[in-house]
Amino acid sequence: MAKPVEVSRKVIRYQDRQVEEIEDQVVTEYPVTIKINKEEFATMVCTPEYVEDMVVGFLASEGVIKAYSDIDELWFQEREGYVHIKTEKLNEFYQHFHSKRYITSCCGKSRQGFYFMNDAKMAKPAAGANVHLSYEDCFRLMELMQTSAETFQQTGGVHNAALCDKNGMILSRMDIGRHNALDKIYGYCLKNNISLNDKVIVFSGRISSEILLKVSKIGCAVVLSKSAPTELALQLAEDLGITTVGFIRGNSFNVYTHPERIGEMAAAVSERTKAD
Amino acid sequence: MAKPVEVSRKVIRYQDRQVEEIEDQVVTEYPVTIKINKEEFATMVCTPEYVEDMVVGFLASEGVIKAYSDIDELWFQEREGYVHIKTEKLNEFYQHFHSKRYITSCCGKSRQGFYFMNDAKMAKPAAGANVHLSYEDCFRLMELMQTSAETFQQTGGVHNAALCDKNGMILSRMDIGRHNALDKIYGYCLKNNISLNDKVIVFSGRISSEILLKVSKIGCAVVLSKSAPTELALQLAEDLGITTVGFIRGNSFNVYTHPERIGEMAAAVSERTKAD
Repeated sequence: MAKPVEVSRKVIRYQDRQVEEIEDQVVTEYPVTIKINKEEFATMVCTPEYVEDMVVGFLASEGVIKAYSDIDELWFQEREGYVHIKTEKLNEFYQHFHSKRYITSCCGKSRQGFYFMNDAKMAKPAAGANVHLSYEDCFRLMELMQTSAETFQQTGGVHNAALCDKNGMILSRMDIGRHNALDKIYGYCLKNNISLNDKVIVFSGRISSEILLKVSKIGCAVVLSKSAPTELALQLAEDLGITTVGFIRGNSFNVYTHPERIGEMAAAVSERTKAD
Repeated sequence: MAKPVEVSRKVIRYQDRQVEEIEDQVVTEYPVTIKINKEEFATMVCTPEYVEDMVVGFLASEGVIKAYSDIDELWFQEREGYVHIKTEKLNEFYQHFHSKRYITSCCGKSRQGFYFMNDAKMAKPAAGANVHLSYEDCFRLMELMQTSAETFQQTGGVHNAALCDKNGMILSRMDIGRHNALDKIYGYCLKNNISLNDKVIVFSGRISSEILLKVSKIGCAVVLSKSAPTELALQLAEDLGITTVGFIRGNSFNVYTHPERIGEMAAAVSERTKAD
């Protein structure tokens, strides 16, 4: 039996100088430990749905596996919170460099994009991407993601992500953990062999460097958010060829990097450059 | 020279069918790698202020050091993003059990509180705490934290935390990373020998299990938030004796665990229990 995504709980509420006991809905969190070939590998805390997909997406984005077919067996021991992986194809590079700091060889370059060796290896430049959104697409896809998020949760505060193409939303996932919603999407795509070079990620929260790297590893070239990006995320997005659109709210948004995939911005920008 | 907390950046803004280039403020993120006795230990991504405090707080809450005096030398190589620690007092327990899954010995107990061995070791039951807040204190301390947060940042979306006692706010810290703001507070307290058993943590975001464990390791018995807790955080809070107050907004809030430290809730609850 699946574990619940939220539970009911007695809470003491103070309101307008009155104290009363009420029933409130509280979101759950569960630790899930990944064991690879019987060895403990990592523990993630997550919302207990699509856990297998999340583990597949996480292992692929960390560079532990390269394809879904690298996994010989996968089973979820749900009650105890273990996902077991049997594989003969562990990526050797990963075993050496997991969470090792990546040192840029060029000392003259002051900015530091990649800070982990496996990120530098796994992030994919979005050169082959084939996606172009109109201004209206940006608003519409954000609205689709938000409507879907509201349907599935009442308690608020979880992270929501959707995989979209120009025509609409393909799937949406939520999680208490920032990256887990994206890992759930990635795992689903790997399992079902979904091509990603014409797809867009729509995310509810801030575009941090970790989120941007996740989008790149998944292989999407555009990320839309209703929140702000960080400077490090934007440096990575520029280098990796990813279009970042933030603050999609009301009738406005900001495009931070690679505007050529949004509306007529490419023309607007190139004209301005000529005029300079 | 300290790295900036936010930078200015050119952004293409779409608003009401118009495209224009504007200057926008974007928050920064920096990777900081901790080296202990010349060996790479961990890399954190953070807002570049109070970095030394953050590292001290992180190492203490992870159980790597037990006191500030365990550190023989600490220096911040700011440009390259390294914090170097020299110590002869590395906690041995930690070296064995870092991020190993904690298995509860009692199989009959279905809930899983601690999921890491070092959390189970480092979290402190709040039995000796000496703190009681009135209903008005809860609103006032939340307002102090929020006012301070608004003063220091314009770009939004960072996490804010404050250390308070009944009389007011002692210090506040912000960070792009969820736990970093709390680590910055913890490191400051350790360095300056600030007693914590009469203190309160006020946090801007959701009380997840990781935040609750951090509060417990710091040694505070009350956590106030304007957001929601998770069920796992509340199970831990009950076990560790921590009072969790959430959804402090307008003229209402919810008390989820250990209400005896808030207003006259203890009496209200015990009378209700008698009546049952």
